[in-house]
Amino acid sequence: MSGSTDDIENLIALMAKLPGLGPRSARRAVLHLIRKRSMLLSPLADAMTQVAISARECLNCGNVGTSEICDLCQDDRRATGELCVVEDVADLWAMERAGVFKGRYHVLGGTLSALDAVGPEDLRIPQLADRVVSEEITEVILALNATVDGQTTAHYIADQLDGQVRLTSLAQGVPIGGELDYLDDGTISAALRARKDL
Amino acid sequence: MSGSTDDIENLIALMAKLPGLGPRSARRAVLHLIRKRSMLLSPLADAMTQVAISARECLNCGNVGTSEICDLCQDDRRATGELCVVEDVADLWAMERAGVFKGRYHVLGGTLSALDAVGPEDLRIPQLADRVVSEEITEVILALNATVDGQTTAHYIADQLDGQVRLTSLAQGVPIGGELDYLDDGTISAALRARKDL
Repeated sequence: MSGSTDDIENLIALMAKLPGLGPRSARRAVLHLIRKRSMLLSPLADAMTQVAISARECLNCGNVGTSEICDLCQDDRRATGELCVVEDVADLWAMERAGVFKGRYHVLGGTLSALDAVGPEDLRIPQLADRVVSEEITEVILALNATVDGQTTAHYIADQLDGQVRLTSLAQGVPIGGELDYLDDGTISAALRARKDL
Repeated sequence: MSGSTDDIENLIALMAKLPGLGPRSARRAVLHLIRKRSMLLSPLADAMTQVAISARECLNCGNVGTSEICDLCQDDRRATGELCVVEDVADLWAMERAGVFKGRYHVLGGTLSALDAVGPEDLRIPQLADRVVSEEITEVILALNATVDGQTTAHYIADQLDGQVRLTSLAQGVPIGGELDYLDDGTISAALRARKDL
């Protein structure tokens, strides 16, 4: 590659493929990077190269990390007998940010979908049954998204594990700080059905 | 750097510094990058390294490119005697996308600002006067933003070049496809003052 403006155009085209950036914001980001070459562009290039080399999926749970078995699966304090099933790594990170779950995770890598021909074998569902036995799991928490595919997947897993462990799912209701006026009807009716005595 | 999840956290922290990305969208972007390692992450790392090496400011106009004098300044067909003055490179790119201006550009690198102590010497204003003479410029188009600082800068430049060349600025009015209801009062009154006979 010799020095030409194609280098910059090429970078803009690649940046525009990131979720949340379009062609216009990619251009703005690249200009910002060029202005902050030593503070941001070079460190970012190095960090990306490093992650491209080191990032891998945990063989046990599907989390993203830099070793064959991720930090969470290696941590013995996490062997609480509770296993939280999530759709993808972003959901695992969201749970970890909440900081309230102390057990281990199982990342499915998606949801069952008849439309997209995603079956149980395409997800990490067979491994889930294995882990329930080998890690002596007593409770499986299904933290799947409240979408049709997410709930279909939850039902399928519940069928598979029925009788082997305690199965739970996240409570549905009004988000903290949520205003009723801005909530969809489904959430309001779920919150009403699950109403609690004060 | 040995393999640890710190690599990934470090990449997220750097990505979050890009304009248009926050901590949450940076995390999402990094997950996307890791999933598309060979298609996106590695090419992006290489493209950033390449741009970090090759990108430079054009010594003549301030445009960003990969040579000492940018492609626009090297193109003799651009020597039309028209010079378009813009605040920054993003504005130059916006003008080029419109594809209607065939002359050369002069990138100031900001606007005059008493508040931020930005004077003419901090911008590419002295070079502008030199270029008007050396490149036999006949018309300087002031394409500065319609902000207070932008207009102050335009007036300052107009004072400096008064009598030497024809000075023009972009027309103000209703944007194509713009709805009056969504326009600010200043734009509407400018459009009314500059109204044209049908």
